[in-house]
Amino acid sequence: MTQEKKNIAIIGSGLVGSLLAIYLKRYGHQITVFDRRPDIRNIEFSGRSINLAMSNRGWNALRAVGIEDEIKEIAIPLDKRAMHVIGKEQYFQKYGKEGEAIWSISRGVLNKRMIDLAEQSGVEFRFEEKVWDIDLPGAKVFTGESEKGEWVEYPFDLVFGCDGAFSRVRHKMQRRSRFDYSQRFIDVGYKELTIPANADGSHKLDKNSFHIWPRGKFMFIAMPNLDGSFTCTLFMPFEGDVSFENIKTKKEAVHFFNTYFPNVMDDIENLTEDFFKNPTSAMVTMKCYPWTYWDKVALVGDSAHAVVPFYGQGMNAGFEDIFVLDEIIKEFGDDWERIFSTYQEKRKPNADAIAELSYRNFVEMSSKTADVNFLLQKKIEKHFSAKHPEKWIPAYSRVTFSNRPYAEALAEGDAQEEIMREVMKLPNIAAKWDSEEVEKLMLKLIG
Amino acid sequence: MTQEKKNIAIIGSGLVGSLLAIYLKRYGHQITVFDRRPDIRNIEFSGRSINLAMSNRGWNALRAVGIEDEIKEIAIPLDKRAMHVIGKEQYFQKYGKEGEAIWSISRGVLNKRMIDLAEQSGVEFRFEEKVWDIDLPGAKVFTGESEKGEWVEYPFDLVFGCDGAFSRVRHKMQRRSRFDYSQRFIDVGYKELTIPANADGSHKLDKNSFHIWPRGKFMFIAMPNLDGSFTCTLFMPFEGDVSFENIKTKKEAVHFFNTYFPNVMDDIENLTEDFFKNPTSAMVTMKCYPWTYWDKVALVGDSAHAVVPFYGQGMNAGFEDIFVLDEIIKEFGDDWERIFSTYQEKRKPNADAIAELSYRNFVEMSSKTADVNFLLQKKIEKHFSAKHPEKWIPAYSRVTFSNRPYAEALAEGDAQEEIMREVMKLPNIAAKWDSEEVEKLMLKLIG
Repeated sequence: MTQEKKNIAIIGSGLVGSLLAIYLKRYGHQITVFDRRPDIRNIEFSGRSINLAMSNRGWNALRAVGIEDEIKEIAIPLDKRAMHVIGKEQYFQKYGKEGEAIWSISRGVLNKRMIDLAEQSGVEFRFEEKVWDIDLPGAKVFTGESEKGEWVEYPFDLVFGCDGAFSRVRHKMQRRSRFDYSQRFIDVGYKELTIPANADGSHKLDKNSFHIWPRGKFMFIAMPNLDGSFTCTLFMPFEGDVSFENIKTKKEAVHFFNTYFPNVMDDIENLTEDFFKNPTSAMVTMKCYPWTYWDKVALVGDSAHAVVPFYGQGMNAGFEDIFVLDEIIKEFGDDWERIFSTYQEKRKPNADAIAELSYRNFVEMSSKTADVNFLLQKKIEKHFSAKHPEKWIPAYSRVTFSNRPYAEALAEGDAQEEIMREVMKLPNIAAKWDSEEVEKLMLKLIG
Repeated sequence: MTQEKKNIAIIGSGLVGSLLAIYLKRYGHQITVFDRRPDIRNIEFSGRSINLAMSNRGWNALRAVGIEDEIKEIAIPLDKRAMHVIGKEQYFQKYGKEGEAIWSISRGVLNKRMIDLAEQSGVEFRFEEKVWDIDLPGAKVFTGESEKGEWVEYPFDLVFGCDGAFSRVRHKMQRRSRFDYSQRFIDVGYKELTIPANADGSHKLDKNSFHIWPRGKFMFIAMPNLDGSFTCTLFMPFEGDVSFENIKTKKEAVHFFNTYFPNVMDDIENLTEDFFKNPTSAMVTMKCYPWTYWDKVALVGDSAHAVVPFYGQGMNAGFEDIFVLDEIIKEFGDDWERIFSTYQEKRKPNADAIAELSYRNFVEMSSKTADVNFLLQKKIEKHFSAKHPEKWIPAYSRVTFSNRPYAEALAEGDAQEEIMREVMKLPNIAAKWDSEEVEKLMLKLIG
């Protein structure tokens, strides 16, 4: 499919910005990517981000432009969770069926590769050039040294805002009338920590697992890197009993790790040092609408729909935006107004759904993991699903291992929840959770 | 009660800003009010605003600083709704008990008077001076001719953002981490129109009524002014069948008024002219949290909680903010950190409640007024309330004629709704709506 050549600006050279550049370059457009930060290929990556979990939707988007295999070389498949529960041996939970896995990948490594690929295809990158303002109807971009200094004006045909949760492009749209917007932070923050490789370069923990130390209100996770290290994330309330606020000294940090994470004690030096070196970051759910302005400007990825990271779908959702946008481009050709309106109408419900699913996972992890009824319910679901895999697809599988819309996964999950509400009402359910009676009731309720 | 003297900036000289200035000046503080607009006392007021309905909370706040009586002289009491339903004679609905009324007042007239009163008490006003930036921890205010031009820096001890729904002060706070924010527009817009006075200066419609022409998806209202005119507001969807979008020519406007509002036909010339002269405005619910920054900056009124106007409580809620803030100042003296944190914790749930109540009133007016069950339910409630006024206080009365917290009105309203859900389930309820059975059930459910 050919398109009338356009002069296109992409704001943000992150994962979504660089993949969108690769997609659009295929049509022969002239693409300029602006980023206020330096070229990450020339600097040591700050690494301030949760390691990424690429799943089906992400791979799907990469496959469409022929770079799936190349990226898989820098990713590690995780086919299971490794659970580290106090007083228990480490145990494993398979993610899906045989061959199903999520893939651990470092944001920095991936982003560098994507920029390389975009540049090779002819995309121009302008690093260290901050966009201060956008003329929305004119698709003009203004950059400069400082907000009050002199600005350069660039005229474009189309502008894409891929500048993340705190998007400048969206910020400009937000000041317009009839623009809906919300940002909602959770009371839990996160901090990135590292478990280094063994002396011989091998991994200290099982390499093909997503490691979780669930502790109710807080949680520690670890994902493998290619160099044998693990990128870890500590999720913990900002304030309260056990909280970032209450760990102020090295002694307190050592005590904290010793108490709650005894099996990572070998690495406590490293963890404690990281704890005070690395910032504590906040997490936000960000929603807005509309995502586009006429046939001129569109938001893609986090700038349109930032989610909390508890479903591991932030990047996958952004990549899927691009995949869907491209399908629509193929359908409507040069009618950018129609492309943009179709894109936002199609993606908005799915973005809202993954935001909701991600937030629910956060609530589940922080407040329900100690709830006996909740655990029983999960056990029943798992038991039933194992017996009737076609009749009971867990929401996690729908989100992670399929390309069906997020909104469908949410709706199906709600329907399952309805069924389980009935099941949990059965008298003496705890004793007969794996009985034929329960199975029959569930089959009947599924209909 | 005395306080350590502070140098205080108030951003915005609207109703809330000028009343807050009057309140704070009583403690001897030095008060400077900034406004980007000219002094409205020297210009013809644009009048682009729904007439205001002052009710109990507003009067309460004015009374505390001794200006209630003075303001009542420029207000007109409305003790009832005048309903203009097609195919029916005009009929009236009393608002409350004997002596209960809401008061129609022109925003321009009121604002001018409030600024006079503030100035008389020693408040300094700096008009046509736009605040571009705030240094939150430093309580510094930056003003200037243009965003990119040179700015003047003013140091203050405290800064109050009373700059309305599109607050610059909140805008600054919003860019911080862990600041929750949402703006949500409704699909209905409004336009202000005027019905002029009779030649002899008298009112063309009953002067002591709030006039409503309910038409389902759209609605026309009129509130009296002192000069015999009525300030009217047309609420109508932006897009769709009957919508602002679909009235483009004078002929279409005349047809619209003739069809739906036959009893204002005499004034159609005026209405049609206004229709094309006046802008169509949008309505937004705006929520945020926190409302304060350390002991330095606080949001008051619409900047903290803009609501849609369908409960007539926007100004009243802002004035109540000030009244409550003042109670807290009296309690905690010079501890501004404690004053601000108590203020926001106390007011936030009530601001959320009036936002919800206002939004529900919009939904009710635009989609339920033709619903037979809804009308029946309202009839039953009214009948019961007349018989048992102490047992069934309508939410409208709690909001409008009491000083009890908005959150309480919302909770009580929800409890009543629960009861009515049961009542409406009674078989054959339409036939026995005023029966003893219904009355007994309601008494039982109230408990």
